Amino acid sequence: MRSVSVIGVGQTKFGEHWNDSLRDLVTDAGVAAISDANVEGKDVQAVFGGCMAAGRFIGQEHIGALLADQMGLNPLPAVRVEAACASGGVALRMGYLAVASGMYDVVAVAGVEKMTDVSTEDAAVALAGAGDQEWELFNGATFPAIYALMAQRHMLDFGTTEEQMALCAVKNHGHAVSNPYAQFRKAVSLEQVMDSGYIASPLKLLDCSPLTDGAAALVLCASEKASKFTDKPVDVMASTQASDTLALHERETLTGLKATQVAGRDAFKQAGISQKDVDVLECHDCFSIAQIMALEDLGFCRKGTGGKFVEEGRSDKDGEIPTNLSGGLKAVGHPVGASGVREAIDVVRQLRGDAPKEVQLKDAKIGVSHNVGGSGATVVVHAFKRGF
Amino acid sequence: MRSVSVIGVGQTKFGEHWNDSLRDLVTDAGVAAISDANVEGKDVQAVFGGCMAAGRFIGQEHIGALLADQMGLNPLPAVRVEAACASGGVALRMGYLAVASGMYDVVAVAGVEKMTDVSTEDAAVALAGAGDQEWELFNGATFPAIYALMAQRHMLDFGTTEEQMALCAVKNHGHAVSNPYAQFRKAVSLEQVMDSGYIASPLKLLDCSPLTDGAAALVLCASEKASKFTDKPVDVMASTQASDTLALHERETLTGLKATQVAGRDAFKQAGISQKDVDVLECHDCFSIAQIMALEDLGFCRKGTGGKFVEEGRSDKDGEIPTNLSGGLKAVGHPVGASGVREAIDVVRQLRGDAPKEVQLKDAKIGVSHNVGGSGATVVVHAFKRGF
Repeated sequence: MRSVSVIGVGQTKFGEHWNDSLRDLVTDAGVAAISDANVEGKDVQAVFGGCMAAGRFIGQEHIGALLADQMGLNPLPAVRVEAACASGGVALRMGYLAVASGMYDVVAVAGVEKMTDVSTEDAAVALAGAGDQEWELFNGATFPAIYALMAQRHMLDFGTTEEQMALCAVKNHGHAVSNPYAQFRKAVSLEQVMDSGYIASPLKLLDCSPLTDGAAALVLCASEKASKFTDKPVDVMASTQASDTLALHERETLTGLKATQVAGRDAFKQAGISQKDVDVLECHDCFSIAQIMALEDLGFCRKGTGGKFVEEGRSDKDGEIPTNLSGGLKAVGHPVGASGVREAIDVVRQLRGDAPKEVQLKDAKIGVSHNVGGSGATVVVHAFKRGF
Repeated sequence: MRSVSVIGVGQTKFGEHWNDSLRDLVTDAGVAAISDANVEGKDVQAVFGGCMAAGRFIGQEHIGALLADQMGLNPLPAVRVEAACASGGVALRMGYLAVASGMYDVVAVAGVEKMTDVSTEDAAVALAGAGDQEWELFNGATFPAIYALMAQRHMLDFGTTEEQMALCAVKNHGHAVSNPYAQFRKAVSLEQVMDSGYIASPLKLLDCSPLTDGAAALVLCASEKASKFTDKPVDVMASTQASDTLALHERETLTGLKATQVAGRDAFKQAGISQKDVDVLECHDCFSIAQIMALEDLGFCRKGTGGKFVEEGRSDKDGEIPTNLSGGLKAVGHPVGASGVREAIDVVRQLRGDAPKEVQLKDAKIGVSHNVGGSGATVVVHAFKRGF
């Protein structure tokens, strides 16, 4: 297995794109990434795309072929992967594998979802397909309900408070103000989150990530050939994935994601680093409790202490592990098939020094992205480091 | 890239499974393959699954995690790929890549679809998501209509006849009589096909593959370690894939699939063989015209001569290239996410000498499987040879 580098990134603005179709989003993100990577279409040898539920959202499957078609890359092999909200992360991992194996030198990876062409109710049902349709959705459990169960148990077992969860949203919204690609470039106060109304107790509206249209793309290259295209390659140090039961009730615990623990442990091992070495983290905060659990499950703090960790500012920009400086899923938005790629892109931006100046870290060398599918049945973790 | 072998295969009966869910099908096929491979769950390191439209058919996405869950393989990485009717073939290719790269020694590959839980109309709409939703389905073009256009043009340009197409169905049904896994173990006569009523002229009911429930699975292993598990490994000689436009009207020609031509050419090159070396072929005959075009596009006969080639018996069991001895998609059935894996399995059976005695070839050494997504926007070709 050889070293792989990210040589270009691109994305659309995340939000409600009333005048753009999934195809437009894919094209815009793909062209941005290819242009940033300084490659031409002919340099790209394969395409890997993440998309969760285009069949339900827009009546279109066969998204791999659509990506190649829209990006003008026929007859290249194009592969769509689906792992619910981890579709983008798994696509990135498949692209990584394809280059690391020596099969290809340059591949494009994209993630996309167009979620606002259906009613909110239909979107909720489509998204519930990420969980266990027979045991959860059939019985009425939508995703906010499932994460609310985790939050309730976390509060009961560890004394985590609604305020601590709300502070995740406050932090993320604060970061997103400077992010030109974010759906919500608007700070919110603790009071606003606390007063935003219960969706599924204890989760309130502003604890939840929104429905979002958007696409994100990046270009991977064998590290040994990256200098041909860029003087700022970012190297992939680790690419790991783990699975767990689809249904929440079948797990040993509700207060953590075993798949995050396994994929995280494997990633740190593969990268040869410890948590202390990580300068920046983009974690999967589809709900505020998810950020707290991610910080614990990835080992940045002990199980049960995530709420306090956030409250004490230890995941802030100037804290021990600056987390979701982009604004996270909460404020950047969460086009489910795209988020895994977008998270990786925001880590790459920090390492290249390309983040908005309000959130740019000084001299960040190593970053981690963390992408969750469903309520944790798939988790993908990537570690990156500056290659320049 | 190191050599990869198929060490075990398994499938469910294809047909209408009123008492089994997608989960049951996956479990049955997975357990059969793992058992045939003589591996235990702990030997398997990753899972790759093909499934086209479970979101539309059963309201369930996140099929990779479901596979790992149902097969008792958590926390292994599990990846669902979707490429319409080529989902199974692409899953096989991803599994091949994962082993060839050296990342894993043993992986499971599965394909599955549960299509009969919705109305035929809803199934037709779901399947049309394999084509171009905006340009084709929106304007009323379902899949039989799209393939009928290809057939019409093939008849016009080359004089291909409805009888020649019908003979593909006659041949396939004849083969399926001995296949215990086939949906239709029933011979049909030329008259029966010709009298079966137009679905989309010139395609008649018996020119079309059916809606089917079913799953197929196989186990891949690094060839250097295959002897630990089996004394009948079948080696993967080539694994190739190509893309084309989603929409038929955007292509240079209607009478052939460019993606088959590209993937086929690449496969023969990768395997270092010519068409003459191939002892057995499983090709993607979702409609009878598709078998004729596949024989041409893969180079077994010249463009335009496929109808005559079939008519003259040159694709029969005792012909130049025995084709679809299983019964093909036409008679085995076509659970869209599973067919690509099933095709490979039937080639493996021929090479191992495990096919039903009525269709078993003597001393077949090299076989090819060919899997098409949509109307040809994705094509995957695999070449196999006896490894013993």
